[in-house]
Amino acid sequence: MEIILASGSPRRAKLLQQMGLHFKIVKSGINEGKLEKPWTNGVQKLAKAKALAVSGASGQVVLGADTIVVHQNMVFGKPKNSEEAQKMLQALSGTVHEVMTGICVAKYAGNGKFDKIYQDVEVTKVYFRDLESKEIQAYIASGESQDKAGAYGIQGLGALLVDKIEGCYFNVVGLPLSRTMQLLRRCGIPILGR
Amino acid sequence: MEIILASGSPRRAKLLQQMGLHFKIVKSGINEGKLEKPWTNGVQKLAKAKALAVSGASGQVVLGADTIVVHQNMVFGKPKNSEEAQKMLQALSGTVHEVMTGICVAKYAGNGKFDKIYQDVEVTKVYFRDLESKEIQAYIASGESQDKAGAYGIQGLGALLVDKIEGCYFNVVGLPLSRTMQLLRRCGIPILGR
Repeated sequence: MEIILASGSPRRAKLLQQMGLHFKIVKSGINEGKLEKPWTNGVQKLAKAKALAVSGASGQVVLGADTIVVHQNMVFGKPKNSEEAQKMLQALSGTVHEVMTGICVAKYAGNGKFDKIYQDVEVTKVYFRDLESKEIQAYIASGESQDKAGAYGIQGLGALLVDKIEGCYFNVVGLPLSRTMQLLRRCGIPILGR
Repeated sequence: MEIILASGSPRRAKLLQQMGLHFKIVKSGINEGKLEKPWTNGVQKLAKAKALAVSGASGQVVLGADTIVVHQNMVFGKPKNSEEAQKMLQALSGTVHEVMTGICVAKYAGNGKFDKIYQDVEVTKVYFRDLESKEIQAYIASGESQDKAGAYGIQGLGALLVDKIEGCYFNVVGLPLSRTMQLLRRCGIPILGR
């Protein structure tokens, strides 16, 4: 296994598989804590912290990522309970928000050092439909809000909350695939013939 | 089973499942043939032909759909062979194209008649990266081009060909979920609490 995914997210693992890559999962154990502004930098810094917290064997490539939802200058993380999920979805209803994922790919050189460290960020705009209260209730009752930034998952029933997007879809799921490919290639991982 | 999906596409079946719906698959047997202009009308007409070719039991709701790729005023269907796939991907490289899906939802009244027929169309813009020849070769070698309009599947390795989209992602996969939900609701299928 040349690649290590420093994330416990089953969605990210599925997206990496979609790229045809083999990899090992090692959770970073990094506490997400408070995010620094500007958020496009904050998510990259957190992605880097996640990647660098995982040490593999010499030559292995570690991928860290962090995804947030930004709505009217506020960050929406994972909702703590149904009430918070309801407030988030009510706020997102009929408006546009941004999903930002910071990614970091680092090549481990051994002895606790990395000899290549690349990072980047992807931003996608997501436009929600006008949601009725009973739609929000039904969505929360499905259980899908749990453990998801912004209280929804576009790859599930949450697809029905969204009118349209502008940008990379896979970024909204949790890992911007084309951009991740570019960083992995720079660390020597061959993808799609080069 | 109240809903009949008049399509043999495994991708459409997976998308309907994502909406949490139970349904039966009955292929329409409609030959896709030559499409009428304007294409936004042509795909709706074809979706309607597919839906109305399937007769169920009284009260059942049939869903038909047809997806095409339109690039610089030309329709790209499914490639006949690797050479045609290569030509399509080369043409799409570094440019924008539109994916159009016509959908039709009809409620069967019995005796060969339908008492509700609704149709609509969704258009999504897809921006391809500049692709290198060896990336196109590698993609075609993966076998994914076969049986897909425009010779790519965004839900697979084809994700790596795409820079960004504007519109509904699920439309690019083969079924615009939010819009389909709206037509199904008008035929009395409850979705997401209403």
